[in-house]
Amino acid sequence: MNVTLRGRTQHFRTVTFDRAQNAVRLIEQRLLPHEFKIVATKNFRETAGAIADMIVRGAGAIGATAAYGLAQGALAFRGRDPKKFSDHVEMVYQVLKNARPTAVDPVNAMNDVRAAMRTGGTVAEQQSLALAAAEEFAREDVRHCEAIGRHGAKLIRNGMKILTHCNAGWLAFVDIGTATAPMYAAQAQGKKFHVFCDETRPRSQGATLTAWELAQQKISHQIIADNAAGHLMQRGEIDLVIVGSDRTLGRTGEVANKIGTYTKAVLAARHKIPFYVAIPLSTIDWKMKRGFEIPIEERNNSEVLGAWGMVGNSKSNQRAYVRVANPTSGARNPGFDVTPAELITGIITPVGIFKPQELWQRRRDLGFGG
Amino acid sequence: MNVTLRGRTQHFRTVTFDRAQNAVRLIEQRLLPHEFKIVATKNFRETAGAIADMIVRGAGAIGATAAYGLAQGALAFRGRDPKKFSDHVEMVYQVLKNARPTAVDPVNAMNDVRAAMRTGGTVAEQQSLALAAAEEFAREDVRHCEAIGRHGAKLIRNGMKILTHCNAGWLAFVDIGTATAPMYAAQAQGKKFHVFCDETRPRSQGATLTAWELAQQKISHQIIADNAAGHLMQRGEIDLVIVGSDRTLGRTGEVANKIGTYTKAVLAARHKIPFYVAIPLSTIDWKMKRGFEIPIEERNNSEVLGAWGMVGNSKSNQRAYVRVANPTSGARNPGFDVTPAELITGIITPVGIFKPQELWQRRRDLGFGG
Repeated sequence: MNVTLRGRTQHFRTVTFDRAQNAVRLIEQRLLPHEFKIVATKNFRETAGAIADMIVRGAGAIGATAAYGLAQGALAFRGRDPKKFSDHVEMVYQVLKNARPTAVDPVNAMNDVRAAMRTGGTVAEQQSLALAAAEEFAREDVRHCEAIGRHGAKLIRNGMKILTHCNAGWLAFVDIGTATAPMYAAQAQGKKFHVFCDETRPRSQGATLTAWELAQQKISHQIIADNAAGHLMQRGEIDLVIVGSDRTLGRTGEVANKIGTYTKAVLAARHKIPFYVAIPLSTIDWKMKRGFEIPIEERNNSEVLGAWGMVGNSKSNQRAYVRVANPTSGARNPGFDVTPAELITGIITPVGIFKPQELWQRRRDLGFGG
Repeated sequence: MNVTLRGRTQHFRTVTFDRAQNAVRLIEQRLLPHEFKIVATKNFRETAGAIADMIVRGAGAIGATAAYGLAQGALAFRGRDPKKFSDHVEMVYQVLKNARPTAVDPVNAMNDVRAAMRTGGTVAEQQSLALAAAEEFAREDVRHCEAIGRHGAKLIRNGMKILTHCNAGWLAFVDIGTATAPMYAAQAQGKKFHVFCDETRPRSQGATLTAWELAQQKISHQIIADNAAGHLMQRGEIDLVIVGSDRTLGRTGEVANKIGTYTKAVLAARHKIPFYVAIPLSTIDWKMKRGFEIPIEERNNSEVLGAWGMVGNSKSNQRAYVRVANPTSGARNPGFDVTPAELITGIITPVGIFKPQELWQRRRDLGFGG
């Protein structure tokens, strides 16, 4: 999507591949929203490091990065021995997989690349197929987000006020994003609307990443404290809620997403405000039977006890952590919560909008073969 | 309540009067939770400054501070002319009133002091009556909070997990507090329980002041992001909610309190968790007919766009503001919200616990003469 640098608006993707340099080019997301910088990883180990260190984050974005990383590792192989090549690729696969051991997207993406490579004979053929498959994975990620935007844009009418939580924007994918896709598509159709970005404590991805995306895209928006959404709904100032999802249960329609999502769904239901979840098909879990089984990660307490940001003035401007809370107090820091299907108006997917309870009966349309 | 300084636990009140020095002694709340310091205001202008600069905040605390400030100003008068004395007291009254022009507590407190002074004849008599009335105002504030604690402690059973929002603790009153009063009373009865303190963005009074109070009082507690309460309720980890109130409508039972209170009430109702509001009688508004009429202050956006805390290490430790949000984004920052009576299980007052809908019929018991 758009980024304006020194007055000039350019189009960027979160992840791209530089064939000439055999490098993966990534937006350094840890510096956002205060600095925009592209980093190029020179080899697959650096690419794995970028995933591990969260230079790149978000389901689609780390999937594409791992796919490119596998191709990058394969292309770096010098020699013609298919056995040695195969051992090398397996090693690259493991290094990239271990960069974020609990994430499912890098594994799925790399499995696509490996499957494509198997159709080739020589090392050179397999190298070429690896890159083509990685490029296809990234293109498909973009196409899926475009399709989410096409379906979701129908929900947005002129003058609407939309609430979103956390960041399920283009920075979390190769481009366009999921929760933001309907907004970007509606904007392209000339619709005018306003977005409230939940700050999304404790990591503040709404105040930092989503607000940055919307500002770059020149979409009218304001950041609110997570405490303020209920009041705004009560005063009739929110017409629609769109959020993303880390995992959606195909059997029950339950949605796991950033902590606080459930609260917004409860509030929206009370105020009869439509609550939509935008997802790529890859995040549907067709196996798990009950949302209660989804493991809820307890993250580091320091996130709750303080905040990261910029301190100082234009002369000495630096990133720093401030300790906000009482220093002798501890915290609880669940990273995610689970929203039941009854609170969700619809799930916006690349193949259409479904009621959460419909997912299972529509599983063939949604790409589940089992 | 208790404060432990250099290993020694002492009892402090938020506001006290030093007769020998004719000074008001205040806990410097802007330094909490990182530093505990008592400041003494040497004259009524300094006392007004302490209210204006929020060295002292909270309904009961600023009421008592203004009452003491008026007595302090009266005691500083040198002379015997009742007319000149009366003009002087009127001037002191106006200076203290203008320190926080929208607050009702300083005015009510100073009116009590003035009424007492009118029963005296000589300047010396009136000076003595002023101080006695200010002392009585402070004692009554403490007695009311003790009574709230006595009634509210019955709601707390061994092993309970209690949620509170913002700070309605002893720092907001002369001592004991309102939302915290039942906890302190239950602790004194030997009950064991755990408190979750909502961080309470954007000003984080839960993470700073309430957590500090509970830590000093050695009550088991953890700070949570405002986004986490819904998840904890869903998992059965919260048994009771107790909050304070800035204004409670006597005619409807609606409660205005810190932004986010309404959200917690909606969540509690969904999970059938008792939701109580602890209030002193002085915060009941018997005139206003609908909560929608309560003006909701829009506060400075910088509160939402960043956070105050301590940066640096033990060698260079200083208070600083970090800019968290995207620098080209704006914010909305409503300071309060209104919770309807239907979501409130009970109002804990110094004279007993009432259903919010009962307040009007019980208005004589609740001190409303009209």
